[in-house]
Amino acid sequence: MRARTYLDCNATHPLLPEAKEVMCQAMEYAGNPSSVHTEGRAARGLIDQARTHVANLIQAKSDHVVFTSGATEAANIVLTPNWQMGRAKLTMNRLYVSAAEHPAVLTGGRFARDDIVILPVLNSGELALNVLQQMLSNHDQSSGVPLVAVQHANNETGVIQPIAQIAAIVKAHGGVLVVDAVQTFGRIPLDISHDCGDFFIVSSHKIGGPKGAGALIGVTDLMMPKPLLSGGGQERGYRAGTEALPAIAGFGAAAHACAERVMHAASMFTKQRQLEKLILTIDPNTIIHGISAGERLPNTVFFSMPGLKSETAHIAFDLAGIALSSGSACSSGKVGPSAVLKAMGFHEAEGALRVSICLETTNADIAAFGEALKMIAARRSTTRFAA
Amino acid sequence: MRARTYLDCNATHPLLPEAKEVMCQAMEYAGNPSSVHTEGRAARGLIDQARTHVANLIQAKSDHVVFTSGATEAANIVLTPNWQMGRAKLTMNRLYVSAAEHPAVLTGGRFARDDIVILPVLNSGELALNVLQQMLSNHDQSSGVPLVAVQHANNETGVIQPIAQIAAIVKAHGGVLVVDAVQTFGRIPLDISHDCGDFFIVSSHKIGGPKGAGALIGVTDLMMPKPLLSGGGQERGYRAGTEALPAIAGFGAAAHACAERVMHAASMFTKQRQLEKLILTIDPNTIIHGISAGERLPNTVFFSMPGLKSETAHIAFDLAGIALSSGSACSSGKVGPSAVLKAMGFHEAEGALRVSICLETTNADIAAFGEALKMIAARRSTTRFAA
Repeated sequence: MRARTYLDCNATHPLLPEAKEVMCQAMEYAGNPSSVHTEGRAARGLIDQARTHVANLIQAKSDHVVFTSGATEAANIVLTPNWQMGRAKLTMNRLYVSAAEHPAVLTGGRFARDDIVILPVLNSGELALNVLQQMLSNHDQSSGVPLVAVQHANNETGVIQPIAQIAAIVKAHGGVLVVDAVQTFGRIPLDISHDCGDFFIVSSHKIGGPKGAGALIGVTDLMMPKPLLSGGGQERGYRAGTEALPAIAGFGAAAHACAERVMHAASMFTKQRQLEKLILTIDPNTIIHGISAGERLPNTVFFSMPGLKSETAHIAFDLAGIALSSGSACSSGKVGPSAVLKAMGFHEAEGALRVSICLETTNADIAAFGEALKMIAARRSTTRFAA
Repeated sequence: MRARTYLDCNATHPLLPEAKEVMCQAMEYAGNPSSVHTEGRAARGLIDQARTHVANLIQAKSDHVVFTSGATEAANIVLTPNWQMGRAKLTMNRLYVSAAEHPAVLTGGRFARDDIVILPVLNSGELALNVLQQMLSNHDQSSGVPLVAVQHANNETGVIQPIAQIAAIVKAHGGVLVVDAVQTFGRIPLDISHDCGDFFIVSSHKIGGPKGAGALIGVTDLMMPKPLLSGGGQERGYRAGTEALPAIAGFGAAAHACAERVMHAASMFTKQRQLEKLILTIDPNTIIHGISAGERLPNTVFFSMPGLKSETAHIAFDLAGIALSSGSACSSGKVGPSAVLKAMGFHEAEGALRVSICLETTNADIAAFGEALKMIAARRSTTRFAA
């Protein structure tokens, strides 16, 4: 029997051996990183090493990396109206997000619902820049700074936002830009110093680190959001709570490994083209979502095939030994219509399927997917899936 | 050379082999617990198993366990004025905490500073029950329910609060009681159904699980605090964010191991007596903090020896191969006067040292501590430590 084929790397990436090794080492550290004795300082050393690795992957200063329990927590920290600039209070009175954001950003963190402005995206999945421009022009600067949060790449479609253009617009209007880089960090080269945002949200388990760690990374430390978790003074006061030592150490090791892995991202493009060709051969009327966007992640194919109901096809794939997704995995097993597709103006009731690969995906994996799709697509025309 | 002696188990407990084993297994699970495919459901199974183990250790329903990134996050979730009871809103307009709380509770979570009432403790470290009674009698019920948060056992002194009496007072005044059980969970038998509180905060790394997991456990699920982290619908909507799989699995395994370990807690009493005798032999004028309390943890000795400056003694112990603490380790390496001692009316400038043992602590460990203390105490009378 063939081993299962895992094609759901945007939901979570299998743990890299490098991360596993460091986590096993970290498990032998007895101390609390906040303790001043030898054991505590050794644990602190592991955290600091991880901080350097995570910072390096995005060309940030390690002092500007705040470790969190994950990207959702990082989003909830940074999406707040209440900031401090030195001793002065700073209010960001309105949050602007794209309609295609991940729920962790779309729900707006600590902003009141009325202070969240949802910006439309084009059919391509890209943010409507003219609307952003117009909205920020209308923003009343006297009542506070506009905070804009957009994802670098979409988790479902893989569409990459024109982040430099977005950053330029936000900057021109005196705003602050938060970039949800969860799907690009460790996948494509990133440089935080390139005028492409003020704060970056990243996650460990999307790059081959363990679940349970993430980070908020600032270009500077001039502005500080009101802490979300109060208590001890960990993470320079940004985030109270004993550091998740094994997870953070594993995150650091994965980031370190990704410094090399990111150089090979282009090799996934070939497999992405193979996948798309394969799908279109089975049914040329299949829609590949976001294909009209300027750029997409090299690992993601999100598609709708006429008559193929994604919820049931998803299960059929699973039975055929293939793990993929019918959207994002962020809502605790819930399967529903994709809000991202809706935002892109797509109303097909059948939904869509997401294949998301990684560097380890082989030609045999892609062939297995093709065989399964052929079988499942063939069934669709004769005995349509039950709803 | 003798291996180092770790006597700082209240700061963090070394990882139990049982937890390590399960974490290593969990690292092989590729899926996101929110994915509906086989890999996702397998990951979900690990989380559910951990939930059962954690619930069983406190006789709770597993459905009432909400996993968090740690106890600090659990405290920040539950310490909020904004609650939901079914569809109705419920306001807890004032938070009452003891002056000896851990900073994660003392800072009051999401309560405005003006709505936090600090209750005094006696010289024994126990909550002044008459003040609690009086304060709750004066509470204006028409503007909201009083929320009371107290720790079951203090992290520095080990003093156990008369929690059944506190719960009775809170209940008589229509209040809700949150119990910070971080230092008692897994150490002494606990039963959530015994009228001893409404919500319990517990931590993984204090019981031999990994850092990076904790839980908020409710006696019922009638009342729900406003979520702290918004985004996906994980943890029944209580807490968004992909679950920290390896850490939660390790937490569950540690909880499972503690079901047995907690039965042997009494064996630590003998060692605690040994430690105290040893300390008093070296200087009979030494104060053992909290010794007048009705109950203390069997693993904690917090003492002040005349002329022994804790900050420097702490370092001298470390150099002698012994890890102990001069207070709690919750403030990121900061060493300062103990707020707990101050709350107990103790103003000795020298501070205090904390020895906190675990089941694995041997007679040899205690002897090593005794030798070091003898040496350090002898030095104190001749060449006092530099400030």
